[in-house]
Amino acid sequence: MSSKKLIYLPLGGAGEVGMNCYVYGYGAEDQERLIVVDLGVTFPDMDSTPGVDLILPDIQWLEERRDRIEAIFITHAHEDHVGAVGHLFERLGAPVYARAFTAHIARGKLAEYGLSDKTVKTVSAWPETVNAGPFTVGFLPVSHSIPETSALVIDTPDGRVVHTGDFKLDPTPIVGEPWNPDAWAEVAKPGVKALICDSTNVFSPDPGRSESDIADNLEALISEAQGMVVATTFASNVARLKTLADAGHRAGRSICLMGRAMRRMIEASVTTGVLADFPTVVSPEEAAQIPRENVMLLVTGSQGERRAASAQLAQGKYNGMRLKEGDLFLFSSKTIPGNERGVIRIINQFSEMGVDVIDDQGGRYHVSGHANRPDLTTMHKLMKPQIVVPMHGEHRHLREHARLAQTNGAQSIVAVNGTMVSLSGNAPQIAGYVETGRTYLDGSVQIGALDGIVRDRIRMALNGHVVVSVVLDENDEPLGEPWCELKGLPEIGRSNAPLVDVLESDLDQFVGRAGDKTRGDDDKLEEGIKRIVRKTCLDEIGKKAEVTVIISRLEA
Amino acid sequence: MSSKKLIYLPLGGAGEVGMNCYVYGYGAEDQERLIVVDLGVTFPDMDSTPGVDLILPDIQWLEERRDRIEAIFITHAHEDHVGAVGHLFERLGAPVYARAFTAHIARGKLAEYGLSDKTVKTVSAWPETVNAGPFTVGFLPVSHSIPETSALVIDTPDGRVVHTGDFKLDPTPIVGEPWNPDAWAEVAKPGVKALICDSTNVFSPDPGRSESDIADNLEALISEAQGMVVATTFASNVARLKTLADAGHRAGRSICLMGRAMRRMIEASVTTGVLADFPTVVSPEEAAQIPRENVMLLVTGSQGERRAASAQLAQGKYNGMRLKEGDLFLFSSKTIPGNERGVIRIINQFSEMGVDVIDDQGGRYHVSGHANRPDLTTMHKLMKPQIVVPMHGEHRHLREHARLAQTNGAQSIVAVNGTMVSLSGNAPQIAGYVETGRTYLDGSVQIGALDGIVRDRIRMALNGHVVVSVVLDENDEPLGEPWCELKGLPEIGRSNAPLVDVLESDLDQFVGRAGDKTRGDDDKLEEGIKRIVRKTCLDEIGKKAEVTVIISRLEA
Repeated sequence: MSSKKLIYLPLGGAGEVGMNCYVYGYGAEDQERLIVVDLGVTFPDMDSTPGVDLILPDIQWLEERRDRIEAIFITHAHEDHVGAVGHLFERLGAPVYARAFTAHIARGKLAEYGLSDKTVKTVSAWPETVNAGPFTVGFLPVSHSIPETSALVIDTPDGRVVHTGDFKLDPTPIVGEPWNPDAWAEVAKPGVKALICDSTNVFSPDPGRSESDIADNLEALISEAQGMVVATTFASNVARLKTLADAGHRAGRSICLMGRAMRRMIEASVTTGVLADFPTVVSPEEAAQIPRENVMLLVTGSQGERRAASAQLAQGKYNGMRLKEGDLFLFSSKTIPGNERGVIRIINQFSEMGVDVIDDQGGRYHVSGHANRPDLTTMHKLMKPQIVVPMHGEHRHLREHARLAQTNGAQSIVAVNGTMVSLSGNAPQIAGYVETGRTYLDGSVQIGALDGIVRDRIRMALNGHVVVSVVLDENDEPLGEPWCELKGLPEIGRSNAPLVDVLESDLDQFVGRAGDKTRGDDDKLEEGIKRIVRKTCLDEIGKKAEVTVIISRLEA
Repeated sequence: MSSKKLIYLPLGGAGEVGMNCYVYGYGAEDQERLIVVDLGVTFPDMDSTPGVDLILPDIQWLEERRDRIEAIFITHAHEDHVGAVGHLFERLGAPVYARAFTAHIARGKLAEYGLSDKTVKTVSAWPETVNAGPFTVGFLPVSHSIPETSALVIDTPDGRVVHTGDFKLDPTPIVGEPWNPDAWAEVAKPGVKALICDSTNVFSPDPGRSESDIADNLEALISEAQGMVVATTFASNVARLKTLADAGHRAGRSICLMGRAMRRMIEASVTTGVLADFPTVVSPEEAAQIPRENVMLLVTGSQGERRAASAQLAQGKYNGMRLKEGDLFLFSSKTIPGNERGVIRIINQFSEMGVDVIDDQGGRYHVSGHANRPDLTTMHKLMKPQIVVPMHGEHRHLREHARLAQTNGAQSIVAVNGTMVSLSGNAPQIAGYVETGRTYLDGSVQIGALDGIVRDRIRMALNGHVVVSVVLDENDEPLGEPWCELKGLPEIGRSNAPLVDVLESDLDQFVGRAGDKTRGDDDKLEEGIKRIVRKTCLDEIGKKAEVTVIISRLEA
């Protein structure tokens, strides 16, 4: 048996929803030639990543092996699959392959970094393939919620791997290619070594519904509405935008797109020819001239994002439009866990205006873009892989999907980010663990999740910040009192005097009484000052403040 | 017609779920005698209230009228109704009335502030009443999820007001008095002027289910479990604790309570005699000696709280217990919007251990403690009030409930916190608006939500913090370079040099070149320094940092 092995290594997306980044390798140990599948992002939150702009996979392992990377393949144009291409490309430097629409989006992201159009190579659908070292890779169309979504058929010396990417089994997806079981069966015919499979909806017990299923509900809702209708969904859910616009159009309304991301996505779809027959849209200025019962707005901000169109409309005017009593606002979307507060805030703001809000609890106006549990079984049984490796899901999803795959007769394994799995044998084997994690895009800088920067921000937010300045002369004698500034702390504490006065008085006493050894040693002096500040804060206001000490020494 | 009026004024709980605090008044304008119903809290979050310990209603309006407050009534012992009694009592100083169990809990809260037992007066159920100025108030039992929950029957010179508090219509509530429509009909007989009514579940379309409905599901689930069973719910949901413990006991398991709040609540229930036949509990030490398939833990932390028992078990050992493959963890609770991330984190941690987690999506193991939409209609029709004022709900709930009440034949109004409503006429009338809001308990200090303290914390969390120290001599000449300290900011920026070096060099240049007018004026110098720091940060790291400047001047 060859010492060469086929390996699978998730760097993002396995143990979480979002931030997809998977590596396949083939070769002798530590000499594998590599391909990367997807370079996605995930989004920060105030709880764990305040001030961070975007979260990227930690690709240090790949970067250290950049001479071995043959190519990068992008399955589709959702941010959690393509969003990091611009930010990370220069650290990898391999050609990027995608289908036309996805390539268009990826090129836009590279352009933001001044990188050439030619970095991204457009590939047609399967059976066209790309040779990438020991791999031959083809883009197998599958239904999802954005045009030209594709699984990857990855032929390797150890057999065929099918990487599903995000998918659902939708025979009538409105936009993008319908689910084509015959084409997939054809791909399965030579035998599938491993199916690397989307796990997002493994806990959804019923078969997935088609995008077409909600068209009638939407049209009925919109037709009955008396005032303006506003609908929000993910800007990148091109299928839903089409479904919504068609329903609005049939109900006799002019369609107006609001929010940059949404307009950009529709323009890209039309430019690349993947979106035919999208109803004519009017500008916000034109919409303002049309009777409101004849207008339908499609807006960004389905997750309650503060700067998106929906949040702005909820606060008042946006692009000259203002909602009012009798208008209807529809969330044609699912709220991602963690975003509930933002969504509820918007709903209540609209409620105060007298706008009726429909948040789609019952699924009448939203269907998921991912395969449900019975659909996963359909996929397992159709492809008959030797091995199923669940991907794209939190640990609970991967674990449940592995169980399901075993029930369906496949070998399976739970492999979270950083787990290198050998797919060469009859069963998957753990071949090692790679240090991995998250990289934060913070302003214009990439920082490591464990650098302590964000930890310090969280501490300042929880504890407030006391800054102390002490000036000492050439003989280590204090010049004046220590000076304190407070940020994020109450002004008055237990003794009913300004906290800053109490601190300065306590510090003055401490510095005045400190011995030469302490005053002459920055570290000792700082340590002593911090101790006093923390104790005084705890006594006065019951909080352990963060402390920064600046010691200035005059030179002789 | 008398110039005296009956007023209703919510200070908390109307326009939000939680932090209940309602005021009723009777008298001539600005001379009304007042009673307070409930003094509850709500909970902080990292998004809007980092570092805050608890959120209390802003009672300044009441405090300024404390000589007119006759009494404080507490409907039941949930934190969002009784939680602020200890923190706010001294600012109000009126006697507190509650039924025995609630009074027991309230006394515990007052004891934390060293306040006497006698401050709280125990009242028996209706038809016993308390005279409080122009009001006569009785505690009318109603079903909810904690013992001795009561509505208030408030008789006034302008008629009878029924304040429902939290309630559901449960004929078999396991703990606490069953819903008794006859008693309520009796109260309604003389005619009800106004029903001030819980709105929490107005969007739940089906009739509410009884606590008893889930007993069989729970027993079946627990009986089938092979390993240890752990269940979590709100510590204060005494009814659920009983339902869970009974089901576990019937399935042949020893019950062990984990988490201080939960043990305290059960002890209080047993002490006051409102919880009979609670199964014998074993200590964690004893539980560790029993085969795991014979043990059931009841633990705190249903909302994913980081320090509660469930989060600690998810991280490893707690009280000597450790979960493992084959154990079962049940959320017998609903996740409150905003807490999803914390709950999901725990689920995934358990998944990594091989513990099966049941989060109750389908309602098999949890029922709500609040009246659903059809139950609200039942209440409206039974009480036949002239006026329904929706309370306890976000704006959308109040608005929907007001519509429902109108459909059911009552006058209604949406009155959010700070809206003073006159109930004296045939229809509710807005009598004025009162400035109100939230008070934060921050460490040991109460601060205002608009004081800017928390805003500064959020800014430091989002933007990081640069601290600059400059020392000038008697002639305003700089002594040495300006000194910078960074907190929560990347170390290296665009120019690939340490950010702190770039900042210090830019500031040195600025201070060196600044004219006498700038150097001699603290405000101008500070302003200039802040401008330089912000510009350099933006150039180097793409962020607008918060800046604190300390200028030290040596005296001649």
